[in-house]
Amino acid sequence: MSKVKVGVAGYGVIGNRVAGGVVLQDDMELIGVADIAPTLAVRALKERGMPFPLFAAIPGAETALDEAGIPVAGSFDDLLGEVDIMLDASPGGVGAKNKEHYVRAGVKAVFQGGESAEIADVFFHGTANYEQGLGVDYLKLTSCNTTGLIRAVDAVPQAVGVSKTFITIIRRVADPGDTHRGLTNVLQVEPIPNHQAVDLMRVIPEIDATGMLIHTPVTHGHIITLSVTPKQAMSVASALEAFHAYPRIKVVRIADGFDSAASLFQWARDLENPSADL
Amino acid sequence: MSKVKVGVAGYGVIGNRVAGGVVLQDDMELIGVADIAPTLAVRALKERGMPFPLFAAIPGAETALDEAGIPVAGSFDDLLGEVDIMLDASPGGVGAKNKEHYVRAGVKAVFQGGESAEIADVFFHGTANYEQGLGVDYLKLTSCNTTGLIRAVDAVPQAVGVSKTFITIIRRVADPGDTHRGLTNVLQVEPIPNHQAVDLMRVIPEIDATGMLIHTPVTHGHIITLSVTPKQAMSVASALEAFHAYPRIKVVRIADGFDSAASLFQWARDLENPSADL
Amino acid sequence: MSKVKVGVAGYGVIGNRVAGGVVLQDDMELIGVADIAPTLAVRALKERGMPFPLFAAIPGAETALDEAGIPVAGSFDDLLGEVDIMLDASPGGVGAKNKEHYVRAGVKAVFQGGESAEIADVFFHGTANYEQGLGVDYLKLTSCNTTGLIRAVDAVPQAVGVSKTFITIIRRVADPGDTHRGLTNVLQVEPIPNHQAVDLMRVIPEIDATGMLIHTPVTHGHIITLSVTPKQAMSVASALEAFHAYPRIKVVRIADGFDSAASLFQWARDLENPSADL
Amino acid sequence: MSKVKVGVAGYGVIGNRVAGGVVLQDDMELIGVADIAPTLAVRALKERGMPFPLFAAIPGAETALDEAGIPVAGSFDDLLGEVDIMLDASPGGVGAKNKEHYVRAGVKAVFQGGESAEIADVFFHGTANYEQGLGVDYLKLTSCNTTGLIRAVDAVPQAVGVSKTFITIIRRVADPGDTHRGLTNVLQVEPIPNHQAVDLMRVIPEIDATGMLIHTPVTHGHIITLSVTPKQAMSVASALEAFHAYPRIKVVRIADGFDSAASLFQWARDLENPSADL
Repeated sequence: MSKVKVGVAGYGVIGNRVAGGVVLQDDMELIGVADIAPTLAVRALKERGMPFPLFAAIPGAETALDEAGIPVAGSFDDLLGEVDIMLDASPGGVGAKNKEHYVRAGVKAVFQGGESAEIADVFFHGTANYEQGLGVDYLKLTSCNTTGLIRAVDAVPQAVGVSKTFITIIRRVADPGDTHRGLTNVLQVEPIPNHQAVDLMRVIPEIDATGMLIHTPVTHGHIITLSVTPKQAMSVASALEAFHAYPRIKVVRIADGFDSAASLFQWARDLENPSADL
Repeated sequence: MSKVKVGVAGYGVIGNRVAGGVVLQDDMELIGVADIAPTLAVRALKERGMPFPLFAAIPGAETALDEAGIPVAGSFDDLLGEVDIMLDASPGGVGAKNKEHYVRAGVKAVFQGGESAEIADVFFHGTANYEQGLGVDYLKLTSCNTTGLIRAVDAVPQAVGVSKTFITIIRRVADPGDTHRGLTNVLQVEPIPNHQAVDLMRVIPEIDATGMLIHTPVTHGHIITLSVTPKQAMSVASALEAFHAYPRIKVVRIADGFDSAASLFQWARDLENPSADL
Repeated sequence: MSKVKVGVAGYGVIGNRVAGGVVLQDDMELIGVADIAPTLAVRALKERGMPFPLFAAIPGAETALDEAGIPVAGSFDDLLGEVDIMLDASPGGVGAKNKEHYVRAGVKAVFQGGESAEIADVFFHGTANYEQGLGVDYLKLTSCNTTGLIRAVDAVPQAVGVSKTFITIIRRVADPGDTHRGLTNVLQVEPIPNHQAVDLMRVIPEIDATGMLIHTPVTHGHIITLSVTPKQAMSVASALEAFHAYPRIKVVRIADGFDSAASLFQWARDLENPSADL
Repeated sequence: MSKVKVGVAGYGVIGNRVAGGVVLQDDMELIGVADIAPTLAVRALKERGMPFPLFAAIPGAETALDEAGIPVAGSFDDLLGEVDIMLDASPGGVGAKNKEHYVRAGVKAVFQGGESAEIADVFFHGTANYEQGLGVDYLKLTSCNTTGLIRAVDAVPQAVGVSKTFITIIRRVADPGDTHRGLTNVLQVEPIPNHQAVDLMRVIPEIDATGMLIHTPVTHGHIITLSVTPKQAMSVASALEAFHAYPRIKVVRIADGFDSAASLFQWARDLENPSADL
């Protein structure tokens, strides 16, 4: 069986991980990634010997990439001509423009968290509404925060059911090394409801959700508190059991040293994981 | 009518404000404050011309205070001999030791948030259980976080009632200028339930409360999210009305610029308030 | 003798202090301040009962100010019609545009640190080149960092002289409460030389200066290290004596508790200074 | 030729890297590491399948390690009985106590930066005084900051020479995930001279060094500014050439994106390095 040919648009913090993930799949082939400038991430790709090709994401990007000594494999259209599907990890709003190229080139696409939900046929979560995503051409993924918290809510067995949830997102405001955004000694609040509550209701419409988001001056990990009201009584033991059974939820204990968001980053580092990712 | 004679134990961030508050009361006389070392706050007292006397809070403290040029009015027992009541703002655990002196000297006392609830006859909140504090000799105040959140819960009219609440405390980890404690790029969690939920149930036993506390690397202000379940339905308008009617709750709007904990500090600063306090 | 009539453009962190300073002068009268929006600082002015009038800094600004209930005393041109001199504390670049109005209205002006040096007749420091500023119509002040470090360099007696200096600026990146800029867990460097070294050489051309600037994620105070090479040997004692003699230099000791930039903010707070300013 | 048998005392942030480094050497064999508690780093060792044995660093440590399910290979004395040399990365002060065991067991040792210089025969830097370390039994390494800055000073060719240097250390105050220490919104200064200047003069006595250290609230990387006075004139080009020629100095350009300490961490992460280390 032939492999699915995949391209990645945007080689930043997300695109980097997405590309690495594609490389690990047996049934996919990474044709290349596209970016617009010789960022540190792109320079690191060259330092690593270009394990996969880089394409110029916009006309004219070749100039600066050439000057930085980065080999450019071709234009964005060249990339689209070779792939079956694009994974779009470009900054919020750029994906919407890219979609026009995808439609014209007859290429399917999955858009990352930064785009508006309207960009795609289905607002997609890997477990909670997986079936809805089958067979459609354009998916938009829930953001990382929403993806994680939906797992916790969706882990409640259907026999129990959830009537409502109150979500407090305590959000890191920047990625490590970011200088174009950040907060200093500030806890910043956003209007209620947070977009994660709204997004949860798009994916699981029968739950009544609201909540608040607070940006905090840290770079490693978010913390989310959830007050989930089950339709039927549920013991702590059965809740823990449900968490253990659900894919991609890791239950940790404060007493074991997991007492902060950063301790999970530290855990990945102690495991000597590449990029200190989990 | 004679004024109540008041002493303050501990002249740090809290004792400083407590002493300033006593000075503003028509029916109180501030006899003096007590501390153990020539801290910046104590040096500032001298710079201000000693608006009230300083006593040595422990034997031997005079030496370092003398060396720093701080006038010492007498010993801790000297202070106790002149007052009717002590407001104890010493570090957690010290108040318990001080209480022995208060009992021996026949002096009443109010203890600040850092002590355990067992130190006093009543675990006291200025509005929610005010009547319970009348006539007793030793009060322990709820901590600043608990004091504030109880106001919000207690603001719900009794005709409506509250059955339970889920509390997320997003806490600044240090005071401005602290070098003896702090967090850097870390959101630290504490075991559930947070002490504020436990304390709420001491003051208002009929409410079922739990929640989580997250320490964040900021110095100005805490943010608390509350999911409060009323016994009867309550509109947003009536909730706002209840907040406006309750003493010491200020309702602000994100749209007006109050979009962070630090904006309230900034507000106090723009008002040119002494010490930039609200 | 009639008082100098003064207006202030921009009522932010700097304009706020500048206006407060003018009010304290016996030989000046504050006609008013101008701003473009109902910021927290402007709302605080109203909360304080409008101790001085506010003017709309740009046409159309009245609308939003009116909606926020802020009384508007008139237009920017109205303000210029009443003053002898403007103190311009508007954001970098805006002062250059405002200058056209000042020239047209025949009004003198002093520009704050954010503008380019070319905006004015003299790039002015209150002690190091005071005489150069006499009699000219437009002054541009050195930035706060440069103002402070020039004091330290200028404190070296002329009989000793300074040949060169190496300046490391360890800069707070934002004001308290800022959400439009900030850094999180990042020390950001700027290209050498820092603008403070360049500015120093504009004010004191005979000194050879260079240095580096590092933005740090704090909001209270900068720290500057200076390696100053005197032309003749100088003892530590005579250097300290020179610092004590120079206006607006405060010599403090780490051992007394002044062990951080924030401790000076804390000192101002402990002095119960309005706005916790020094 | 038989391999040198190596043990590591202390499996924290430093011990972790030291152990990993030993594993990579062809002429060394890592016998095991020793620690006192089931920290996250130790738990990660188990998660990785115990690539090398763990010994109990103090009597009684087995209990907590056993309870956490960590296999314990033996006591500290057991480890000492098998090795030729110990690399001691235990917390400051512990190394001095461990040394007594090393002497008794006839084992050589290298101590990390946290110990006092007196613990060893030679205060050692890998290039600047390499010869002095040959043949002695106990070495104490310079701290990470001192190690780096000595490289920059030592890179100046001997034909040019260095007369003096002024060192400003802008130091991250904590490791990622630390909750036992940290600073929040504070730049903290230490008394002059900083220990790095003192240590530099121990290693290269002919240079006159002083400087200042400022702790900053970040977790990734220190920044050091050096004003180095050469004995003879030196061009920027020849200085750059000297840096390029010196081992373990990497010259980077702000224009390429290396504009912060964190950008070097980000670079390591983009290279997909294990643990995101450089």
